[in-house]
Amino acid sequence: MAKIYNFSAGPAVMPKKVLEKVQTELLSYKNSGMSVMEISHRSSLFSEIQENAEKNLRRLMDIPSEYDVLFLQGGATLQFTMAPLNFANNFKRIGFINTGHWSQRAIEEANLINGVEAIEIASGFSSGYTKLPEENRTSEDLDYVHITLNNTIEGTAYKEVPYMKDKFLVGDMSSNILGQRYNVSDFGMIYAGAQKNIGPAGLTVVIVRHDLVEKSPNLPAMLSYKKLVNKNSTLNTPPVFAIYCAGLVFEWLIAEGGIDVIEKKNREKAQLLYDFLDNSSLFSSPVSVKNRSITNIPFVTGNSSLDAKFIAMATENGFVGLKGHRLVGGMRASLYNAFPIEGVKELLKIMQKFELEYKGVY
Amino acid sequence: MAKIYNFSAGPAVMPKKVLEKVQTELLSYKNSGMSVMEISHRSSLFSEIQENAEKNLRRLMDIPSEYDVLFLQGGATLQFTMAPLNFANNFKRIGFINTGHWSQRAIEEANLINGVEAIEIASGFSSGYTKLPEENRTSEDLDYVHITLNNTIEGTAYKEVPYMKDKFLVGDMSSNILGQRYNVSDFGMIYAGAQKNIGPAGLTVVIVRHDLVEKSPNLPAMLSYKKLVNKNSTLNTPPVFAIYCAGLVFEWLIAEGGIDVIEKKNREKAQLLYDFLDNSSLFSSPVSVKNRSITNIPFVTGNSSLDAKFIAMATENGFVGLKGHRLVGGMRASLYNAFPIEGVKELLKIMQKFELEYKGVY
Repeated sequence: MAKIYNFSAGPAVMPKKVLEKVQTELLSYKNSGMSVMEISHRSSLFSEIQENAEKNLRRLMDIPSEYDVLFLQGGATLQFTMAPLNFANNFKRIGFINTGHWSQRAIEEANLINGVEAIEIASGFSSGYTKLPEENRTSEDLDYVHITLNNTIEGTAYKEVPYMKDKFLVGDMSSNILGQRYNVSDFGMIYAGAQKNIGPAGLTVVIVRHDLVEKSPNLPAMLSYKKLVNKNSTLNTPPVFAIYCAGLVFEWLIAEGGIDVIEKKNREKAQLLYDFLDNSSLFSSPVSVKNRSITNIPFVTGNSSLDAKFIAMATENGFVGLKGHRLVGGMRASLYNAFPIEGVKELLKIMQKFELEYKGVY
Repeated sequence: MAKIYNFSAGPAVMPKKVLEKVQTELLSYKNSGMSVMEISHRSSLFSEIQENAEKNLRRLMDIPSEYDVLFLQGGATLQFTMAPLNFANNFKRIGFINTGHWSQRAIEEANLINGVEAIEIASGFSSGYTKLPEENRTSEDLDYVHITLNNTIEGTAYKEVPYMKDKFLVGDMSSNILGQRYNVSDFGMIYAGAQKNIGPAGLTVVIVRHDLVEKSPNLPAMLSYKKLVNKNSTLNTPPVFAIYCAGLVFEWLIAEGGIDVIEKKNREKAQLLYDFLDNSSLFSSPVSVKNRSITNIPFVTGNSSLDAKFIAMATENGFVGLKGHRLVGGMRASLYNAFPIEGVKELLKIMQKFELEYKGVY
């Protein structure tokens, strides 16, 4: 088996130590004679897993006590529906900052709910979403404002969270949760699919201010934050194995030094690649310098058949998942927490080699 | 580590061979250098996993081609909401056969949907749900009829599926899917949480007739069978690892001889326990003989402190998960496909010993 560098946007690379621990105790969790996949979600073995996972996530993100933490299913896409159902009940209007594909999907899903209207209060359209909008139109008659912190496809990310007077923010943090520091109290709610920086796919983390939960209407159980909070995420059988893995990732991240340390490492990894791109005569980043994501880094040669040639060569050499999203083409390097800096250095080597071979050829 | 027999109602015991295979290839799936948790849901590695899982499930259950197979999240509880949203659009009335706790939960959730009314067309209430209702009142103005095939808590199960003239059945098969033979074409839709006979928690299998999917309204994506079918369950990131495990369980079950063979084994396991219960002077089954589940077998001593004593003794001796559901008390032995007949024989030995010691003491 050759060495692999996995640049996938998600499901993505996980910490090797976590995978090894999962493997070691897969047949008998804590000497129970049962796999963690076989233990009851009502057992003390599982309660302890969930409690520790929550405690460590609170510690990592410095989550204030007035926020609830939920471990749910259905990915960010189900949150596109749940947030409006739970929170858009006064004005039935939601402000959206449109920063690309995933915020547009959130808008589409909000508009599918009877009586709810999604209002675009800002858009990166004019820049082809290579820039984040600088001004957000505020309006009195909004229930809340939705923001996508990191745009996985377009490669932009917020470093500072925009201030929305009197309106709380609902933040999609799927692709950079735990990868850089945000202030939880800047949000009414944060949600994130697990399959990037948290663990395996099939788990969604929701962090929500308790007063907002209390005000939500009487919804079907699996769509109601209030009911899920009241049952501590075990209203029905939760995704036990995924929560267990997430807990191990949180422990790993604490051992690594926490978010501030990993953010520094993530910035170093990203800077290596951006410096190369900005000095290359073949490859370039399409994203405005000040809005660049440190997590998902799209790049192009400017020639789609040359892009394809590069991706094929890279894949053959063990650089997996570099193909850009079908909506934007080109390449994309996703450098999540578990992605090693060596992988970036090795990538730069093959980019350099490719550049020498192909610049001026097309 | 002592030998453990895991009688949990779910998450439940999984086939040892499946767990061993998961463990073996956990760090590098098919020599890819990546864990199955790290592979993209858009990769050919995953497409093959999903295609094989669907193909094998179709083969095992003999699913006709006019049915779609979905791999979803959210458990049976989310299906309590999704089925009405998708199918209760003409009369906005659903007939429910009330066979206990889980059908009552389905009724509650249906009634939470605006404009939808759940009609109880039959009930096992008068027997304390120890019997299945014998007659179901039919009515013209129902969109469909909901039935719970196996009642995990009460320990009843349908052997024959009731015929509903002109109305299609939506069947909750969570606790006995793949454990006994049903005819898929008797249903408009079947759903099942994975954590009993399919694999780890966090996956829901839905089998649905395509013409019903086509007729459903324009719903939020993650609640719409039509949109999920159109995207082949990968509308967003599916629970990759859980689908992989389910696929391995399906392969294991085919190697074991399929549903008819495993049903025979399940009947043998259940019969051993029922024979003991029916001849015991201490333990007994509260369930009507002809409606007894072969999957979940509740039993009692008739004295709750004696029940507690038995459970404590059993747990100490490695018989895990025998505590009955809090709603009915007593004991419950869940004998899913992966549960070995030896475990039943060993259970009978300690029951016998306990009976000798305690009969007549209280």
